[in-house]
Amino acid sequence: MSVTPVQNASVPGETDTDQTKRRPRVVILGGGFGGLNAAIALRRAPVDVTVIDQRNYHLFQPLLYQVATAGLSPAQIAMPIRRILSRQSNATVLMDKAEAVDTAARCIVTGSRRIPYDYLVVATGARHTYFGNDAWAEHALGLKTITDATAIRARILSAFERAEVTDDPRLRQKLLTFVVVGGGPTGVELAGAIAELSRRTIVHDFRRIDSSSTQVVLVEAGERILPAMPPCLSSKAQRQLERLGVEVVLGNAVASCDDSGVRLADGTEIGSACILWAAGVMASRAAKWIGAPADRAGRVIVDERLNPPGHSEVFVIGDTASVTGADGRPVPGVAPAAKQMGRYAARAILDDMAGRQSAPFNYRDYGNLATIGRKAAVADFGKARLSGYAAWLVWNFAHLWFLVGFRNRLVVFLDWSVAYARNDRAARLITGHYGA
Amino acid sequence: MSVTPVQNASVPGETDTDQTKRRPRVVILGGGFGGLNAAIALRRAPVDVTVIDQRNYHLFQPLLYQVATAGLSPAQIAMPIRRILSRQSNATVLMDKAEAVDTAARCIVTGSRRIPYDYLVVATGARHTYFGNDAWAEHALGLKTITDATAIRARILSAFERAEVTDDPRLRQKLLTFVVVGGGPTGVELAGAIAELSRRTIVHDFRRIDSSSTQVVLVEAGERILPAMPPCLSSKAQRQLERLGVEVVLGNAVASCDDSGVRLADGTEIGSACILWAAGVMASRAAKWIGAPADRAGRVIVDERLNPPGHSEVFVIGDTASVTGADGRPVPGVAPAAKQMGRYAARAILDDMAGRQSAPFNYRDYGNLATIGRKAAVADFGKARLSGYAAWLVWNFAHLWFLVGFRNRLVVFLDWSVAYARNDRAARLITGHYGA
Repeated sequence: MSVTPVQNASVPGETDTDQTKRRPRVVILGGGFGGLNAAIALRRAPVDVTVIDQRNYHLFQPLLYQVATAGLSPAQIAMPIRRILSRQSNATVLMDKAEAVDTAARCIVTGSRRIPYDYLVVATGARHTYFGNDAWAEHALGLKTITDATAIRARILSAFERAEVTDDPRLRQKLLTFVVVGGGPTGVELAGAIAELSRRTIVHDFRRIDSSSTQVVLVEAGERILPAMPPCLSSKAQRQLERLGVEVVLGNAVASCDDSGVRLADGTEIGSACILWAAGVMASRAAKWIGAPADRAGRVIVDERLNPPGHSEVFVIGDTASVTGADGRPVPGVAPAAKQMGRYAARAILDDMAGRQSAPFNYRDYGNLATIGRKAAVADFGKARLSGYAAWLVWNFAHLWFLVGFRNRLVVFLDWSVAYARNDRAARLITGHYGA
Repeated sequence: MSVTPVQNASVPGETDTDQTKRRPRVVILGGGFGGLNAAIALRRAPVDVTVIDQRNYHLFQPLLYQVATAGLSPAQIAMPIRRILSRQSNATVLMDKAEAVDTAARCIVTGSRRIPYDYLVVATGARHTYFGNDAWAEHALGLKTITDATAIRARILSAFERAEVTDDPRLRQKLLTFVVVGGGPTGVELAGAIAELSRRTIVHDFRRIDSSSTQVVLVEAGERILPAMPPCLSSKAQRQLERLGVEVVLGNAVASCDDSGVRLADGTEIGSACILWAAGVMASRAAKWIGAPADRAGRVIVDERLNPPGHSEVFVIGDTASVTGADGRPVPGVAPAAKQMGRYAARAILDDMAGRQSAPFNYRDYGNLATIGRKAAVADFGKARLSGYAAWLVWNFAHLWFLVGFRNRLVVFLDWSVAYARNDRAARLITGHYGA
């Protein structure tokens, strides 16, 4: 068995740091949009990059709701991190789970080993949170990983299957009621997709139930959906959802979730066997690891160079970071922001190696998109605002465009076009141990 | 909620049976090749068809090994049964699990209800068997369902990932040793695909291990692989496998499987973290359900009309049936045989409704194919025998052709062609709870 060492041969650096013998080691925790863009931006740099992720794939998260609603297959939006970095000879990918960071010794601690770094990029993302009610997790499924998505897909499809089998009208009604908690983009996309699935895609598939009588309820605690959008687009999105048959409940939080369904703060009870949770995110444990202050969502509070206090060799980026933009507004937890931070961290590392002072991070907001269903979306580009079919075309084009690097962009496009044209969803499989 | 009854409106029958008021109820257990072909063959018949399956999808099993080795995604070879039968108005699909058959009352018993039948088609297939050593199941993974396939995929890919992470050379060697037990078509296909995966697809993806030094061992208890093929093709297949780097061990059974690997009957120990089981199949519990005699593999021994003794209203088909062909040879457990039996059962039901005596079942053998890897296969068409690239082209064409009914045949073809041309395997995802 031939084993080549992690440490690449020493290459004369183009830098004037004191590390002339050894190339600086950059460890990147997390292979999402932020971490991957940092790694790629270092592809020609005289550094050794190690990307550590507990999963083997990079995920195109904006389309994850499509996997959860059977429109796309996992492999169409996920790609092995090591395949993406296959030809980047200064990059090593390790599938491993960070347990701690020893900032004094500059080491990542995993279950089996210690991995030293000179620069550390923390891009470990966020998970959904139940605001302290972790017991809700088994009833209200969240959507962050491929495994989450296939579990949701199985839960949704099993509800229809069980409704077709049962003779009990009350159980049937409960099985045909879907509750989506949280009116952000993910909640809106999920609710719209479930409504379309039940009213269009599978409407001829059942004999004993009428799938078009399915109830989809979107529950939002705030006073409008898509709070990051201007109010006029929020109400347009709401009307588009209602046209698809989604019932939108505003200003009402979830008081509890259990086997029987959801109880809202005002006492309303909604019987449901399929509750989806798109209400809140909590950053990974990075703040604890590096002993840095965190905001309420657990995100590390970093300065304008994305460093936590006292560690100019550590960069915290993406959904793990709480960053205030030059305009005084918080940088949103979206893919374009994570990508920009990843590239910024790479440049800042090169600046530091060259002894230069980096300019502060400056977030460029290119706009905001949310899709509601087949041929409906809302888009906010500052001055220009779109809704309906035009917004959907922009959304569609943007998402296919940003599947860059996914070799199957064309295949996804073809697959998806055929499915849209035929009102079909190809990936309607109940797999895993979730079957009724 | 509008619910239409299971029982379709009574339609004047074209038959002279005594059931003029009520259309005969045909219940089909299992939506595999046999059951589905029986259902489709009854599409214009004046009967009510109910297909019951514990899973929601029909599986194109001949390509399942491609899912297990990351070449295809599950949705490319699986399709919801109810979608296939969506436009067949006399067919109802229930995702439910049969627990028993009450042959006296002519009812299927599931966990929640009893489903009456006038005719019953049992097509519940087979699962792998460990010949009484069920404790081996967690170490030696079998391949029958999509969930099995994604579990195997995760096990194979995790082995490479863990080998890249570890610093222990003994563990690394164990992780880079794959053992496939059973030299039938599935074992040969799996061994060939793993060898290609490690030697071609992922060879540039790792930095610390040399994936091309992977050992793949195919263990067969008999004296040659592919025992259903003529001996000359067995040895050609073996040479093609060896050219890919597979080590073929013949005449040596597995004595035990555990965490450390496999021990063979002759005492040889092979350290491995990834053992795949393609050695034996055992029919479903159908023989017990219907109180019929079974052969050693648990298959119901049926007569030349596919009926078990004393039940001319029950048909047992596919891998669940032990059938002797007109030539006195057993009908093999392959997809074409299951399809033919399904269509035969449908015709026999129509004959019985018309008071006609059916002709005995006659298996038509169109040939036998097995693929070994990229551009290598063996094919036996009786007089014509092919091997190598020509056989692979035939294999490829036949399998794409028989993906009939799968709307994504063209997409699969495109996807697969691109992947073959680029030596890629798109679906290299470790999902579920199988990660290292």
